Amino acid sequence: MLARLQVQCRDRPGIVAAIARFLADRGANITSSAQHSTDPEGGWFFLRMEAEVAATGGAAGAGAAGGAEADALAALREAFAAEVAEPFAMEWRLAPVGERVPVALLASREDHCLLDLLWRWRRGDLPMDVVAVVSNHELVRRDVEAFGVPFHHVPVPPGGKPEAEARMLELLAGQVRLAVLARYMQILSGDFLERLGAPVINIHHSFLPAFAGADPYARARERGVKIIGATAHYVTEVLDAGPIIEQDVARVTHRDDVAHLTAIGRDIERTVLARAVAWHLDGRVLVHDDRTVVF
Amino acid sequence: MLARLQVQCRDRPGIVAAIARFLADRGANITSSAQHSTDPEGGWFFLRMEAEVAATGGAAGAGAAGGAEADALAALREAFAAEVAEPFAMEWRLAPVGERVPVALLASREDHCLLDLLWRWRRGDLPMDVVAVVSNHELVRRDVEAFGVPFHHVPVPPGGKPEAEARMLELLAGQVRLAVLARYMQILSGDFLERLGAPVINIHHSFLPAFAGADPYARARERGVKIIGATAHYVTEVLDAGPIIEQDVARVTHRDDVAHLTAIGRDIERTVLARAVAWHLDGRVLVHDDRTVVF
Amino acid sequence: MLARLQVQCRDRPGIVAAIARFLADRGANITSSAQHSTDPEGGWFFLRMEAEVAATGGAAGAGAAGGAEADALAALREAFAAEVAEPFAMEWRLAPVGERVPVALLASREDHCLLDLLWRWRRGDLPMDVVAVVSNHELVRRDVEAFGVPFHHVPVPPGGKPEAEARMLELLAGQVRLAVLARYMQILSGDFLERLGAPVINIHHSFLPAFAGADPYARARERGVKIIGATAHYVTEVLDAGPIIEQDVARVTHRDDVAHLTAIGRDIERTVLARAVAWHLDGRVLVHDDRTVVF
Amino acid sequence: MLARLQVQCRDRPGIVAAIARFLADRGANITSSAQHSTDPEGGWFFLRMEAEVAATGGAAGAGAAGGAEADALAALREAFAAEVAEPFAMEWRLAPVGERVPVALLASREDHCLLDLLWRWRRGDLPMDVVAVVSNHELVRRDVEAFGVPFHHVPVPPGGKPEAEARMLELLAGQVRLAVLARYMQILSGDFLERLGAPVINIHHSFLPAFAGADPYARARERGVKIIGATAHYVTEVLDAGPIIEQDVARVTHRDDVAHLTAIGRDIERTVLARAVAWHLDGRVLVHDDRTVVF
Repeated sequence: MLARLQVQCRDRPGIVAAIARFLADRGANITSSAQHSTDPEGGWFFLRMEAEVAATGGAAGAGAAGGAEADALAALREAFAAEVAEPFAMEWRLAPVGERVPVALLASREDHCLLDLLWRWRRGDLPMDVVAVVSNHELVRRDVEAFGVPFHHVPVPPGGKPEAEARMLELLAGQVRLAVLARYMQILSGDFLERLGAPVINIHHSFLPAFAGADPYARARERGVKIIGATAHYVTEVLDAGPIIEQDVARVTHRDDVAHLTAIGRDIERTVLARAVAWHLDGRVLVHDDRTVVF
Repeated sequence: MLARLQVQCRDRPGIVAAIARFLADRGANITSSAQHSTDPEGGWFFLRMEAEVAATGGAAGAGAAGGAEADALAALREAFAAEVAEPFAMEWRLAPVGERVPVALLASREDHCLLDLLWRWRRGDLPMDVVAVVSNHELVRRDVEAFGVPFHHVPVPPGGKPEAEARMLELLAGQVRLAVLARYMQILSGDFLERLGAPVINIHHSFLPAFAGADPYARARERGVKIIGATAHYVTEVLDAGPIIEQDVARVTHRDDVAHLTAIGRDIERTVLARAVAWHLDGRVLVHDDRTVVF
Repeated sequence: MLARLQVQCRDRPGIVAAIARFLADRGANITSSAQHSTDPEGGWFFLRMEAEVAATGGAAGAGAAGGAEADALAALREAFAAEVAEPFAMEWRLAPVGERVPVALLASREDHCLLDLLWRWRRGDLPMDVVAVVSNHELVRRDVEAFGVPFHHVPVPPGGKPEAEARMLELLAGQVRLAVLARYMQILSGDFLERLGAPVINIHHSFLPAFAGADPYARARERGVKIIGATAHYVTEVLDAGPIIEQDVARVTHRDDVAHLTAIGRDIERTVLARAVAWHLDGRVLVHDDRTVVF
Repeated sequence: MLARLQVQCRDRPGIVAAIARFLADRGANITSSAQHSTDPEGGWFFLRMEAEVAATGGAAGAGAAGGAEADALAALREAFAAEVAEPFAMEWRLAPVGERVPVALLASREDHCLLDLLWRWRRGDLPMDVVAVVSNHELVRRDVEAFGVPFHHVPVPPGGKPEAEARMLELLAGQVRLAVLARYMQILSGDFLERLGAPVINIHHSFLPAFAGADPYARARERGVKIIGATAHYVTEVLDAGPIIEQDVARVTHRDDVAHLTAIGRDIERTVLARAVAWHLDGRVLVHDDRTVVF
């Protein structure tokens, strides 16, 4: 079984050696490894590793193959917690590589990011199960249902945000391990984010921190920038201020009016969002201090 | 003689035809042309043309070749003003292509933009005469003088900006048709800009409008952006707010600390500034409403 | 009526003036113009113009609005041919801006380029009518039919290319003004191209001329390049050698195996092909001497 | 002392653990680590690590600080060879981070890559000692000597390559650990490369493998590509075929003639070459099977 380990903790000597010893003692073979330290002296340490570990668990032994893998993983986690994670006060996660994550996609009127994610998912490029698409509009229902994905229309009338968020929590809380705002144009409350209990990735249609807030393409046009962009980030309570996962840009000219900028931007948005989601699912994104480390 | 015509005015039918007729009637051959209109209905019209015009002037006839060219140009300008520019209320400029523009370069401690411009100028890539380099530090004197360019040290001690600006005006006002801030780290007053009487191009070490103001690389690091950039713009009284001529960017990662970002940024800065200066000298940049049209 | 004029001919003085006078004499307002000359002395001249022309025809006068526009355009073409195009021996085209072009899309097993074009077409970003999708596989039928577009399965068994091409000609010849190979993996014969009588745009999954031919991603991996790309070009009898319309690239690393390169490449391919098709439909691409001018 | 370890060998379980144990047993703290495997099953394994190691040697103890560091390093190497490298049949290298490498720069008529490297070196961005600049032309002598670097003119008249190479070997063999061809336009013989005994980095002015050989910009123009590039690679006996270290590209249009392409290309060439040299000096480039791994 190929397993992925993510670790972050205060940096100090011996972290890598402790992890490598732990794995070697169990016959695991490290197949991929990346680490980063903000400062070897009292900085913060990040690591992502993939290792082939034996599927025969330490604990019991009954059960099917999947059960044996799960048992092996549980035993490995228990041992890792005691022998490595606690001594170094690590935040950590150990999961099978390729594990499918249950995900919800939220959209509004624009379909480009939503369809792009659904296409990639259907092609097998994203290791996720799309358990629901939620939109505050009916427009995308038919396309979504053609993918065999449940569609939920949760309108947000003026003053109706609390009800809408409550309805979405009924649908999603406990059901998903990631929510993706595929151009969902409603601001989510801090209370919603907390009760959802899963990270939320948003795509903002500007090169943050430039043009945070509304109508970024119109404001880019007004300012006369020569390059526009898009930003995928984790959502926090502070609008457009969460940790940035990925950005990309495209060149524009004086010939591009707001409609052109918007069309050019759509291609950036969907690519940037897809990369951010893929990297998140692949365990390549670690968050600390409102910034990301992307391995 | 190859001449370049720049025009801007309120858009209305017949502008291109009027210009083309005017040139055709004088046997001129349009070799290059670009135009832009913000809106055919009541928008603003921009045009840049190059045309081969006869060097035999309309006025007298004596004088050397250069004189004949100057006479021809003067006659052409007079006729254009009366027959085309006035009826359409144009802002316009007619100049020989390749005409060398007297330029001053201003720098501080960093030499990368300055050396890059001097080197491009020496190899003949920039049609300008560098009449002076001014710096508030002595550091770059030797390099500048090795290019055979006069170097002036004009320090700016605390409280000494008025004297420094006065000294620079003595050196430059009336002597240059362009000033380039090659990482000159002093803010120029509105009064200085007005009395200089020439456009000023600055390179800002961020992707404006992101990180306007001081220490953009440190702030980019803090915000965790995945792309950094630089912006060349005309200087106005409002800091970092003038019309943008050119921008470019580079990808960065969590591994890049402020020193790395600064080093990566240097390569962007010098390239972006060089492009902006080249395009300005080539008459490709027209300014209207705090934005540029770059043909 | 907004009309678009495309012209190419041997360069000589007076071309622009002749065109501008012709249009001005008929009260047309030039709203956009771009020109290029390979060399003012005996080079080749290219022009693309958009002009607002009166919709009241010269010929008769009866008929509906559409008829009046068509009459006006026919009259304009006749006059332009006689007064401007013939004296300068121009190749030219005059067409209404936004005119919808009948197009066929050809695909094989891969759906990313095909779906991307269909989706852009559905949202109105591409001024074309997709009259048919043809594939040598059945795989994409359901998706195509969901867009309401006729799907034709034309298999190409070993030795069966002549029959397949004959079948495609029955379906398409005379019906389309453009064919797009959206990762259609069969080589089309010169005879087919001639009898189709319409330009054909292909997307090649490499940065041509690097890795022309088969398996470009595998060969890119083998050669160890750090950047991969895709190329949209007009199809000629010589494989992968037709005039290039557009290219784009993405950075890759030693970590990217052939499957990764292929996945990264898909995003480049669909964007590059979409741009090429959009520019072609917008009359921005002129071909001369196996090269393109893209305005 | 911060030391850098580079390793490559056939992949099998336990490599990382063996290295990490070795370092941990000696109190070393791994501050940075990257690894890559072409295939965990029988593939090839690459690793680059930086670790803070004690400067107090294992062997004796006398000598100055520098001597103690050298002793410590020698002892570490001896132990690593015996305990880790030999069991795994590793190719490996252990060196102090920031160690200055003696380098020769070779140039011809073009100065852009040469000056760029000298500027970066003078600014302290490249940890190297430029021990000599060699050119087959006199043109760059004055600029080079202004940097305080010895300049050697080694002309290569027709038929005189063996003598020229012999002269260069006298100057460089045993003196440098890297040679950089900063647009040196002579082909070096396999015999020269072998006798030089140091890696040689070249900058090729095309996006290899496109336009290998002579006159790439002219051929790019002829083919009508929309993007041009440059490639830094290690030199092997086969022209333009050595392992690629870095590439970059820029967009071009039909307006760019060969002179423009060449000018645009210069900016790409010098940036790409500088990156390749910096990465090489930083021990980030490992070569295997005619390809590079760049950490």
